[in-house]
Amino acid sequence: MSWLTALYFIPLLGIPAKAVNNGLARTPPLGWNNWYSTYCDVSEDLILETSQLLVDTGLLDLGYKYVVLDDCWAEEERDNTGHWRADLTKFPNGMKYVADTLHDKGLLFGMYSSAGELTCAGYPGSLNHEKEDAEDLASWNVDFFKYDNCYNLGQSGTALISFNRYKAMGDALNATGRPMVYSLCSWGEDQVHTWGMSIANSWRMSGDIYNSFTRPDALCSCDDERDPQCIAPGTHCSLLFVLNHVSAYADKARPGAWNDLDILQVGIGGMTDEEEKAHFALWAALKSPLLLGHDLRVSNAKSLTIANNPAILALSQDPSTKAALLVQRDTNVPKDKYGVGETHVWSGGLAHGDQVVILLNMANENQKISVSLEEIFVRDGAGGIAAQNHHDWDVYDLWADRMSDNDAQSILDAADQSAREQLFQKLNWYNSTRIPYSEGLKMRDPRLLGKKVSMISAQGILEVDVSRHAAQVFRLRNVDDSNLKRRVAIKDEL
Amino acid sequence: MSWLTALYFIPLLGIPAKAVNNGLARTPPLGWNNWYSTYCDVSEDLILETSQLLVDTGLLDLGYKYVVLDDCWAEEERDNTGHWRADLTKFPNGMKYVADTLHDKGLLFGMYSSAGELTCAGYPGSLNHEKEDAEDLASWNVDFFKYDNCYNLGQSGTALISFNRYKAMGDALNATGRPMVYSLCSWGEDQVHTWGMSIANSWRMSGDIYNSFTRPDALCSCDDERDPQCIAPGTHCSLLFVLNHVSAYADKARPGAWNDLDILQVGIGGMTDEEEKAHFALWAALKSPLLLGHDLRVSNAKSLTIANNPAILALSQDPSTKAALLVQRDTNVPKDKYGVGETHVWSGGLAHGDQVVILLNMANENQKISVSLEEIFVRDGAGGIAAQNHHDWDVYDLWADRMSDNDAQSILDAADQSAREQLFQKLNWYNSTRIPYSEGLKMRDPRLLGKKVSMISAQGILEVDVSRHAAQVFRLRNVDDSNLKRRVAIKDEL
Amino acid sequence: MSWLTALYFIPLLGIPAKAVNNGLARTPPLGWNNWYSTYCDVSEDLILETSQLLVDTGLLDLGYKYVVLDDCWAEEERDNTGHWRADLTKFPNGMKYVADTLHDKGLLFGMYSSAGELTCAGYPGSLNHEKEDAEDLASWNVDFFKYDNCYNLGQSGTALISFNRYKAMGDALNATGRPMVYSLCSWGEDQVHTWGMSIANSWRMSGDIYNSFTRPDALCSCDDERDPQCIAPGTHCSLLFVLNHVSAYADKARPGAWNDLDILQVGIGGMTDEEEKAHFALWAALKSPLLLGHDLRVSNAKSLTIANNPAILALSQDPSTKAALLVQRDTNVPKDKYGVGETHVWSGGLAHGDQVVILLNMANENQKISVSLEEIFVRDGAGGIAAQNHHDWDVYDLWADRMSDNDAQSILDAADQSAREQLFQKLNWYNSTRIPYSEGLKMRDPRLLGKKVSMISAQGILEVDVSRHAAQVFRLRNVDDSNLKRRVAIKDEL
Amino acid sequence: MSWLTALYFIPLLGIPAKAVNNGLARTPPLGWNNWYSTYCDVSEDLILETSQLLVDTGLLDLGYKYVVLDDCWAEEERDNTGHWRADLTKFPNGMKYVADTLHDKGLLFGMYSSAGELTCAGYPGSLNHEKEDAEDLASWNVDFFKYDNCYNLGQSGTALISFNRYKAMGDALNATGRPMVYSLCSWGEDQVHTWGMSIANSWRMSGDIYNSFTRPDALCSCDDERDPQCIAPGTHCSLLFVLNHVSAYADKARPGAWNDLDILQVGIGGMTDEEEKAHFALWAALKSPLLLGHDLRVSNAKSLTIANNPAILALSQDPSTKAALLVQRDTNVPKDKYGVGETHVWSGGLAHGDQVVILLNMANENQKISVSLEEIFVRDGAGGIAAQNHHDWDVYDLWADRMSDNDAQSILDAADQSAREQLFQKLNWYNSTRIPYSEGLKMRDPRLLGKKVSMISAQGILEVDVSRHAAQVFRLRNVDDSNLKRRVAIKDEL
Repeated sequence: MSWLTALYFIPLLGIPAKAVNNGLARTPPLGWNNWYSTYCDVSEDLILETSQLLVDTGLLDLGYKYVVLDDCWAEEERDNTGHWRADLTKFPNGMKYVADTLHDKGLLFGMYSSAGELTCAGYPGSLNHEKEDAEDLASWNVDFFKYDNCYNLGQSGTALISFNRYKAMGDALNATGRPMVYSLCSWGEDQVHTWGMSIANSWRMSGDIYNSFTRPDALCSCDDERDPQCIAPGTHCSLLFVLNHVSAYADKARPGAWNDLDILQVGIGGMTDEEEKAHFALWAALKSPLLLGHDLRVSNAKSLTIANNPAILALSQDPSTKAALLVQRDTNVPKDKYGVGETHVWSGGLAHGDQVVILLNMANENQKISVSLEEIFVRDGAGGIAAQNHHDWDVYDLWADRMSDNDAQSILDAADQSAREQLFQKLNWYNSTRIPYSEGLKMRDPRLLGKKVSMISAQGILEVDVSRHAAQVFRLRNVDDSNLKRRVAIKDEL
Repeated sequence: MSWLTALYFIPLLGIPAKAVNNGLARTPPLGWNNWYSTYCDVSEDLILETSQLLVDTGLLDLGYKYVVLDDCWAEEERDNTGHWRADLTKFPNGMKYVADTLHDKGLLFGMYSSAGELTCAGYPGSLNHEKEDAEDLASWNVDFFKYDNCYNLGQSGTALISFNRYKAMGDALNATGRPMVYSLCSWGEDQVHTWGMSIANSWRMSGDIYNSFTRPDALCSCDDERDPQCIAPGTHCSLLFVLNHVSAYADKARPGAWNDLDILQVGIGGMTDEEEKAHFALWAALKSPLLLGHDLRVSNAKSLTIANNPAILALSQDPSTKAALLVQRDTNVPKDKYGVGETHVWSGGLAHGDQVVILLNMANENQKISVSLEEIFVRDGAGGIAAQNHHDWDVYDLWADRMSDNDAQSILDAADQSAREQLFQKLNWYNSTRIPYSEGLKMRDPRLLGKKVSMISAQGILEVDVSRHAAQVFRLRNVDDSNLKRRVAIKDEL
Repeated sequence: MSWLTALYFIPLLGIPAKAVNNGLARTPPLGWNNWYSTYCDVSEDLILETSQLLVDTGLLDLGYKYVVLDDCWAEEERDNTGHWRADLTKFPNGMKYVADTLHDKGLLFGMYSSAGELTCAGYPGSLNHEKEDAEDLASWNVDFFKYDNCYNLGQSGTALISFNRYKAMGDALNATGRPMVYSLCSWGEDQVHTWGMSIANSWRMSGDIYNSFTRPDALCSCDDERDPQCIAPGTHCSLLFVLNHVSAYADKARPGAWNDLDILQVGIGGMTDEEEKAHFALWAALKSPLLLGHDLRVSNAKSLTIANNPAILALSQDPSTKAALLVQRDTNVPKDKYGVGETHVWSGGLAHGDQVVILLNMANENQKISVSLEEIFVRDGAGGIAAQNHHDWDVYDLWADRMSDNDAQSILDAADQSAREQLFQKLNWYNSTRIPYSEGLKMRDPRLLGKKVSMISAQGILEVDVSRHAAQVFRLRNVDDSNLKRRVAIKDEL
Repeated sequence: MSWLTALYFIPLLGIPAKAVNNGLARTPPLGWNNWYSTYCDVSEDLILETSQLLVDTGLLDLGYKYVVLDDCWAEEERDNTGHWRADLTKFPNGMKYVADTLHDKGLLFGMYSSAGELTCAGYPGSLNHEKEDAEDLASWNVDFFKYDNCYNLGQSGTALISFNRYKAMGDALNATGRPMVYSLCSWGEDQVHTWGMSIANSWRMSGDIYNSFTRPDALCSCDDERDPQCIAPGTHCSLLFVLNHVSAYADKARPGAWNDLDILQVGIGGMTDEEEKAHFALWAALKSPLLLGHDLRVSNAKSLTIANNPAILALSQDPSTKAALLVQRDTNVPKDKYGVGETHVWSGGLAHGDQVVILLNMANENQKISVSLEEIFVRDGAGGIAAQNHHDWDVYDLWADRMSDNDAQSILDAADQSAREQLFQKLNWYNSTRIPYSEGLKMRDPRLLGKKVSMISAQGILEVDVSRHAAQVFRLRNVDDSNLKRRVAIKDEL
């Protein structure tokens, strides 16, 4: 027996799905991280300006509350007592000031180190300094801690070696008494998906992502990206690589413990709007933390309209907490110049009996993608025995109500907060701070449910044209909208 | 030298085939486990009702005596002394009451935990609680213990790490003085097939099975399922995956120590009758524990007629204890929509010189499958040197005398136990409690031997039409029915 | 830098090629092991009869002096003091009597155990009993010790774990003061080819062999048999599997430390005469220990004429001690019913500037195999820079002077030892006890050099028709028969 | 986050790129090693003659200052105090004399041992002798230490085991107080590319190289050479193998810590002039240490004109310290007789905004190779977002100003040093001792920049005919020659 089957019935039976016990991140964290836009060019100004933009553009109101400062914030040398020193050129008021300022805005503050001698950029790492560093983080009122894997002094090679290294910091964080989201970044090494949930709130499951849909890069090299033995702790991992790699572990996500697919590449550039939409929806459905990665200071209406789609965010924050799974993969499709091309169908259970289905076209041409209810609900029973296979379903397009570019630009251009408020009111935009996603879903708030576009009959097939390098993202809703009593139903059908 | 060759001559020479030394499970355990039918929906009622059904339907009389309660029977927290607490809502009279009630019926009671911090469903696991948990199990008169692998705190990565973790519980069980079948469920990790027999009675050799004949699933992902390095400790492993995966280790089975291919999917639904028949026969011939996985409370005549076939059960309980091996595999056959398609021939030595041969068609069309005596007996010498290659063989179909649906339904519908007894008597159905399989085989009881359907001449070929997704299951019997003196015979032939 | 390049110049420069320091097995051991013919059916009679046959048939005179008793010689339980007990039913006079009797005949005695709790057949293993077992072996005057890998209690997974386990016995053997050839049988696990030479005289490099030229078997399963990561510690490994697997490590052989390709299958049956000839020549050229595996008590003239070919044995016992390497492999050839088919060229340096070249046809049809001097001498410089590429070579067929079946039968049928002596004298058969191979090669004894069949000009090509499943085995001799001064020569040619 | 992205901005932001802290090898070491030309035939004469040739031929003036003596310099046995003894037959004045003589010439002295019981050639290794051996090296005034991996007593299998073994020697070297370049030679085992930089100045990333462009050899065997799991710690690794293998780790190079692609095969023979040119340029662009491997005592004008090309050497010694990366690979090209054939494009950032681009043809025919600016600058942003993609570039051929054979021969034939000086003066040859490469590059010395051959427009394509088994090596220079302000520029373009 393993997690998957056990977890399926948790909502029905109320059994515990234990993970790290700090009570945090019961749904995937939403927020922002500076790395892929500014790298080492960090400062108090960057953090505070970005924070204000999260507030102003309504993103905080949609749940984006973690502002994560990545590498390069420290001085190169620790002080006499072995404690970190913030780089006062970059952070003239110290780190606690940043945290406190964010807290005043209703935001939370994340910081970074590496489980090694040095951070990836060469600043002091926390290996063998766990206690003092955790104390510093707590004393600075930090709320989220990302822990990288560079310069780890050969402390890898078995699950046990890596587990002990990362547990040392988890224990130190817990000892401070301050709850902090603990985010592992060990690049999928040493089967972290089997032990990350015991000590942390999320774990990166591969090497670093980059802003490419399908391009394979020598730095993210692996025999077969779906092989659990394949580790590619490099960089330049395409979205396709990440998706295939996580597909074997997608079910390991659970409340408080998530597969981290890395920072969002939306708004970074280099991908089309359709690619970015697909990327965002998949990360949401897979329950990855959703940390925006682009520079918010550069006005970008398109990126805003991806990030602020409540119907997609509702996938991420759904109370069912079940990640979508790869239920269909077809590699017999036109290849691009890299020899790459495949289509996927991802499917995941949502609260109230709904189901998210994503038809992803990574082939080099437009494709008609078909998937049966049998495959969509295979997690609930192979061979068509799932109760859901015997119902009719309405199909809702979750991108249908995307904000228009004009409206987004108006928000970005608004003179002040009051003007923005009026715009949001006029648009009747969803505000998860007022109505949490779980409440909105329970109430069946139409802004979270997309727009009905078709129907599938019992034992039927969903067949959709999907453009090259794009995804169709659907919420399936039972036609009679009753909550399926699944297990009982399954029995009824047999 | 390795086990295979050593074991071949055990029956002839009377040498010891040592495994874990608790004297149990000298043939593969038969019984029932609730997981794949009720998951966490467990209760005293479930166990007792099912137990009575095992008695009433004659399954106990055929050897199904282990009733195994899987996860979710405990309270979330241990008591003050660190001991488990049974969930009294589900088990109002406690666990010992269940065991004692089963014992009164002639059944045996199995329980479950995980070699981790938590069980897979999040209840207290036994890692670092081995002593108190083993004591509880013994004090509850438990007879069988399944030990899972969830939440193992990174204690994996080499055979030694896993061995030590599982040995700790084995030692604790032994220390109680109560014999309990010890069933490892570490999903094939860390080469368990090389050390499981030293501490336990069986070991799972892959991730969790599901009710699909051939469908590959991303959650059971692996480069090449026949590669000993391939581990897929996930879920949704198809029957085909399990078979290919165990094919490299099938010979590791021995009295008291078995490859566990996971709970039977018969009666779960989603597979055809032919698929279920093939599944059941292969699990029997491979000497997997045979734990029924369906809900016996739901009347199901077809499933009963698979489970109660004594000619197949006799493969499982044959005193030769040699698992069937994969002697022929053809992947050059029509593929299904998943790109999957292959045919197998499995062959295994039985007592009294008989041989089981299973021609398995996992291709997408009906296939004519041919196999020579040379291949059938390759374990006894490649290149046709096996003595058996030089004899004529009668071929018996082991599904020929399957109980009819009507008779099965009559048993299920019978008013009381006495009515059932009369039915069994009328059918002259085999009762292994009265005549153990070893005795029946020694006496050549025709109910265990199937029905003669053809003959193969010395050095000849067995060629059979096998429907898509089905298997033909044969017992080969030497035409003159004398016990072959194999080693001497081999020499004679050279 | 690695061993290969270092070793090449040893003969020229007199530098040390250190391995285990017990002074034994400076050339590969020759002898006999009972496993593949009698398995557990062992006895004093078997050993003594076989020993006499080695003497009588002239095999001892050709160097076959190790008589190795494999598993099953002990009682199931140790005595009160923890020492082994010989099974007195099988060995009524104990083991020392056997050793002493063999020594009187000029033979040496080998015994067996496993680095585990039990031997593969279930008798007491030596793990944690190293001291007493080594003392027993020494007290019994044993000369050779084979140490298997069954029931190793999970003590594997890294080179270090396995090394420590096998070193414990090596230390115990050394502590006795009695020199014993130490033969590891850990099936190629844990990179034994990188550390075996530090503690032992040979190491098995794969799972157990069986008597098939090319048939793949599920029990010897591996992703890619040439991948150093591939381990297949099973059984039923074909000759082709063994050859491909060792090809990556063939250069690790050195005086006192050999790749063990497992016991010879010659005379076991199931292979053609051509297959057995190829097998024997390759094992010799690769410097595997050459332990005959067939039952010598069963008269077999053909097997004798393979085993007693001095021109092949001279490859094994050549003072250069360099194993042949796989210099050419072609998989684009006709496949057999198993989908298998390839051709190989193996080439190895011999003393006095000679070279052995084996053209091996494992394709399913006769093949013309071509190989250039450039490839033949690639070890001495790629791209044709080897000095040898610029000389003319005579080609000698090493099977040309094979003993006739009639002569072999006469020897087997001879009335007494004196009659046999006369036959050998008449045949002028080589006797390595009188003229060691190193002496014979130095003197250019024609009986060791085969028969000239063709010539290759400088920078030329050797092209030969090779029958299906056969090998052509050649010794190349420099036309002017001067010893090549290789390094200087290389420089001259540039 | 990982190193790559972090390092990219180092030049811009002045953040530290920490590696081993001995201050040495801030650019890749240049020099000579005797192994592949003389193997164990070493002597004081060899070292001193070669040293003088480095001076005389102007190679020292171009930066080749490390003269590394490989294996076989010691006596077989240590002395009574456990210290090494130099072989006085080969080194009559001891090792310190050699070092001091080299120092007088302006050269530096390198020595060798193995992290094992023995060196690869069987001399005393340093495992468990780290302290005394490091002291000997320091007392002999050694400047560079190569540490091999033979006879390591099973101390491998996880990063941690290997790290500890190699760290022991690093600590011992540091304890002496004498700075020595520390060069690991563990053949890429145990993920050395993740920990080598923490303790050493370079690490070999595969098994031993040999003088072949593409020929696969059984001794360098691996499933997929780009798989990080693939280790091939053998020998006979082709240039193609090494390149593919390092491609996943190329970005790990940094000041003081380099991927070691093994000793140069230039001048060894067996490769064409075009192959040698490609080899040399790739090793330079990849920041491998550049140790000449041929015998300088044998006059060879061609080899000199490869080794003394300052425009190529400037790639190696560029202050940017960023290794070229594999940005394009095409395997759909004509294959040679080994079934091998592919083309590569390697691209790396250089100081002052320049870029090196190498179009490598390892196919079996001439190829037209095309690469877009988008791919060339993919490291700076996928999808064409790199600022550089939006500029025009001049293309400079770095082999254009290669010294003529006649001039090289004149230098080799010159009567005395004064004659040579005049020749160099006449040729106006670059002298990095007078003008360090970093200075020359800053001043845009034309001798370092090659010859302009074409231009690429913004968002354009570089398309070049490349002969079979050759490479075109280009330096791209921004047309307006202003230093690109990359990050700002990227933002501007978005």
